[in-house]
Amino acid sequence: MRDIAFKDITIVFEKEELGLEAPILLEGLPGVGNVGKLAAEHLVSEVKAEKFASIFSKYFPPQVMVEENGIARLVSNELFFHKKTGAEKHDLIVLVGDYQGLTPEGQFLLSGAMIELARRYNVSKVITLGGFGVGHMVEEPRVLGAASDLKTVEELREIGVTFTRGEPGSGIVGASGLLLAFAQLSGIPGACLMGETSGYFVDPASARALLRKLQAILGATIDLSKLDEKASQIDKITSKLRELEQVEEKASSEDLRYIG
Amino acid sequence: MRDIAFKDITIVFEKEELGLEAPILLEGLPGVGNVGKLAAEHLVSEVKAEKFASIFSKYFPPQVMVEENGIARLVSNELFFHKKTGAEKHDLIVLVGDYQGLTPEGQFLLSGAMIELARRYNVSKVITLGGFGVGHMVEEPRVLGAASDLKTVEELREIGVTFTRGEPGSGIVGASGLLLAFAQLSGIPGACLMGETSGYFVDPASARALLRKLQAILGATIDLSKLDEKASQIDKITSKLRELEQVEEKASSEDLRYIG
Amino acid sequence: MRDIAFKDITIVFEKEELGLEAPILLEGLPGVGNVGKLAAEHLVSEVKAEKFASIFSKYFPPQVMVEENGIARLVSNELFFHKKTGAEKHDLIVLVGDYQGLTPEGQFLLSGAMIELARRYNVSKVITLGGFGVGHMVEEPRVLGAASDLKTVEELREIGVTFTRGEPGSGIVGASGLLLAFAQLSGIPGACLMGETSGYFVDPASARALLRKLQAILGATIDLSKLDEKASQIDKITSKLRELEQVEEKASSEDLRYIG
Amino acid sequence: MRDIAFKDITIVFEKEELGLEAPILLEGLPGVGNVGKLAAEHLVSEVKAEKFASIFSKYFPPQVMVEENGIARLVSNELFFHKKTGAEKHDLIVLVGDYQGLTPEGQFLLSGAMIELARRYNVSKVITLGGFGVGHMVEEPRVLGAASDLKTVEELREIGVTFTRGEPGSGIVGASGLLLAFAQLSGIPGACLMGETSGYFVDPASARALLRKLQAILGATIDLSKLDEKASQIDKITSKLRELEQVEEKASSEDLRYIG
Repeated sequence: MRDIAFKDITIVFEKEELGLEAPILLEGLPGVGNVGKLAAEHLVSEVKAEKFASIFSKYFPPQVMVEENGIARLVSNELFFHKKTGAEKHDLIVLVGDYQGLTPEGQFLLSGAMIELARRYNVSKVITLGGFGVGHMVEEPRVLGAASDLKTVEELREIGVTFTRGEPGSGIVGASGLLLAFAQLSGIPGACLMGETSGYFVDPASARALLRKLQAILGATIDLSKLDEKASQIDKITSKLRELEQVEEKASSEDLRYIG
Repeated sequence: MRDIAFKDITIVFEKEELGLEAPILLEGLPGVGNVGKLAAEHLVSEVKAEKFASIFSKYFPPQVMVEENGIARLVSNELFFHKKTGAEKHDLIVLVGDYQGLTPEGQFLLSGAMIELARRYNVSKVITLGGFGVGHMVEEPRVLGAASDLKTVEELREIGVTFTRGEPGSGIVGASGLLLAFAQLSGIPGACLMGETSGYFVDPASARALLRKLQAILGATIDLSKLDEKASQIDKITSKLRELEQVEEKASSEDLRYIG
Repeated sequence: MRDIAFKDITIVFEKEELGLEAPILLEGLPGVGNVGKLAAEHLVSEVKAEKFASIFSKYFPPQVMVEENGIARLVSNELFFHKKTGAEKHDLIVLVGDYQGLTPEGQFLLSGAMIELARRYNVSKVITLGGFGVGHMVEEPRVLGAASDLKTVEELREIGVTFTRGEPGSGIVGASGLLLAFAQLSGIPGACLMGETSGYFVDPASARALLRKLQAILGATIDLSKLDEKASQIDKITSKLRELEQVEEKASSEDLRYIG
Repeated sequence: MRDIAFKDITIVFEKEELGLEAPILLEGLPGVGNVGKLAAEHLVSEVKAEKFASIFSKYFPPQVMVEENGIARLVSNELFFHKKTGAEKHDLIVLVGDYQGLTPEGQFLLSGAMIELARRYNVSKVITLGGFGVGHMVEEPRVLGAASDLKTVEELREIGVTFTRGEPGSGIVGASGLLLAFAQLSGIPGACLMGETSGYFVDPASARALLRKLQAILGATIDLSKLDEKASQIDKITSKLRELEQVEEKASSEDLRYIG
């Protein structure tokens, strides 16, 4: 690896020939409620997907992470692959990572590089995963969708993905939007699945809702128990925080009365 | 379309040979009061101009819009054309879109690309449309002008465009200014028409004032009734808001007295 | 001029062969108190220097100015030249303009382009003009200096330029600093002259102090009466403002007492 | 030096052939508590390292420093070298300077250029120096570490460098992180040593702790008495400030009582 030039975007392959058949490209990078990231990382872990490439870029923060053993690691995005087994219907490439591009330019160029790579691996569909922030607590998170074409809209509607006029009203920002759009412009069908979330917390419950839809699409059985645990931990924390808020609000309104 | 490279600026043509004769290039991108955008989009709709190209760029936000049917669409600028009919005096190319370039650099490079395209289509004049924010409600919006040369100033003054010393005092920022300046430097006459507006709201009344001047320039008859409707809707909303403000101001001054 | 490409930096020459002999390059772009800009523009006007080039760049704001006659003009920097007459000791090139580069990168590349041009015209010295903001009103503005080499320091000290340890403590930011440094690195002697100023207002009195030093350097007689007028106008305005401030401060302290 | 092009990154060599044997590259640029910068500059001064190159870049601020004699100097990074003498175990290249790159892009490209240079000089190890801000006063600053590989972790642990799970939790930002990561990706072992510091002040005591570890690594004897002086000066200043704070806090709580 002595010939890496640290320029705009560098993809370092551990393995280049993957032997995949028209794989689906899944994306789950950090975003609202980290919903997409949680779902994609859970999938990678449960299907035991194999890492085949790291993406380094000047569009990520100039930062290294330090692992528990003291080893430094440059922030990156990572690519995993998985060949279908059993009842599974699709080979997979999964894009996860520490960060999205920091600037609009970085977002465009990183997503462009990714779609170039998708073509090279003959990707048959691009599915991006994200959160849809609604600004209030959500009991039963819906999964909202946007797609490259009407056929894909129909397929997703059949498995219970919600397509509502005006949601998401402000469109989809970042990698989940761009990868879908670049796939569309390249003639690759694609969709973005967005788990409803308050947007205030990391939201494993919303990620779980996403994964249920992915199971239907992929024909895969994914053990969700670890996400269930995380979801109930978050539930406990948010309950505590809400109690504290109520105490504070009461105190603060008393203060105001006192000043008045 | 499989060969699109998602780099700085990409123009995707649906039709390249337009058969236009020395067309006028009109620009109406988002800006103060969205006056230019409203006017240009109304014109496109009323003369049934045909879309011939989309402009994608890393200088726009990294965002997709989601249409009502659930279909995603990368944010873009769009180019329409219209061949003159009846009493109309000029063929038209119209530039509209979701956003202007996000950065100064983006603004410069997008406008540069557009003037390159204008030369290729042998554009005879560039007219950019914008709003001129005055910071207070306007009853009868004037249309202010700036032009590439004295001859164009005189032509516009004859149809009632206002040229006043010191307006706009701070110059013209963004695509409306740059396209005019780049046309001027390329030897293409040009003008910027600015509809007076408060700048607080989307302003169809100001767009209507712009279109009346455009009718005179183009010799076109444009039905303005849809803009009239929008203008009266906005009128109702702003009246409501002003009532609310007065109520709040009253309440707030009472509060202060109470604290005192 | 139909072949201008609107890229990073474009220099449009009205005249290229200037017939100058080892000219001095003077810079006076906007900055603290606009001291350098005022001084350079006054010099250009008084010696009737001739414009020979305009500099356009994506590193300036995306903006056009509108002249009093309604004509638009892309923001730019401008280059003037002047051949010595009478007792004058040096031919001159003067750089003035609407803006400095907006970003650090723009600053570097614009100054780099300017020093390239300086070499082409065989410039013998670079003198940059700026303000030195001290944050309080100044009765008799000093002229502070920084130079490329000790010989130039000595020459300037002889005509009364101040070199004090620790002033300017934070160095010199922007074109005045970079042009001096790039000249220095290119083997061209140079200096930055900084007129002391409050930094709160446009400061013609400080510009006048700069010009007195320039007269000594250039052997030129420059009529300063127009600057004297501007300086007394600013004096009147600032006196008014200080009165108003005192009234407001009194009122505000009374208010506080009232609330207390 | 008349052929310098002021582009992205320019390295101006005063001496290119250094005759070093597999040197260690040490980095100490400004950062938290300026700990790394203080340590590296102290080392340069104590071992009488010789300057061999200056790095100029559009990624640094557009600024010149003015030396005490009135001479201007473009902000830069500087490279020194030192050939081992006596008991010293390693030849050294030391990177110090006025600033780190201003933007993420600048950080990446500057560090990339530096690792390219490290390869050219056959650098055998990269050690970056920084501060680890803890947000409270520190009596006995620890030295925390991160490394490219487990062997280096072990070597550092043996001389008392701390490797704790979760410290630094947010990773290492800037040149200290990137140089380590780029070395790692290039097959050069490396480490980052971070002196614990409050982060509120320039911290010579933390720099001293770093230098003690460097002595062990390099087999060098470094006189720390000048740092001892600086440390006790800072101690006095911070004690004063804490007294003042307590006075102010008391006054302010009295004020509040008064308002209540």
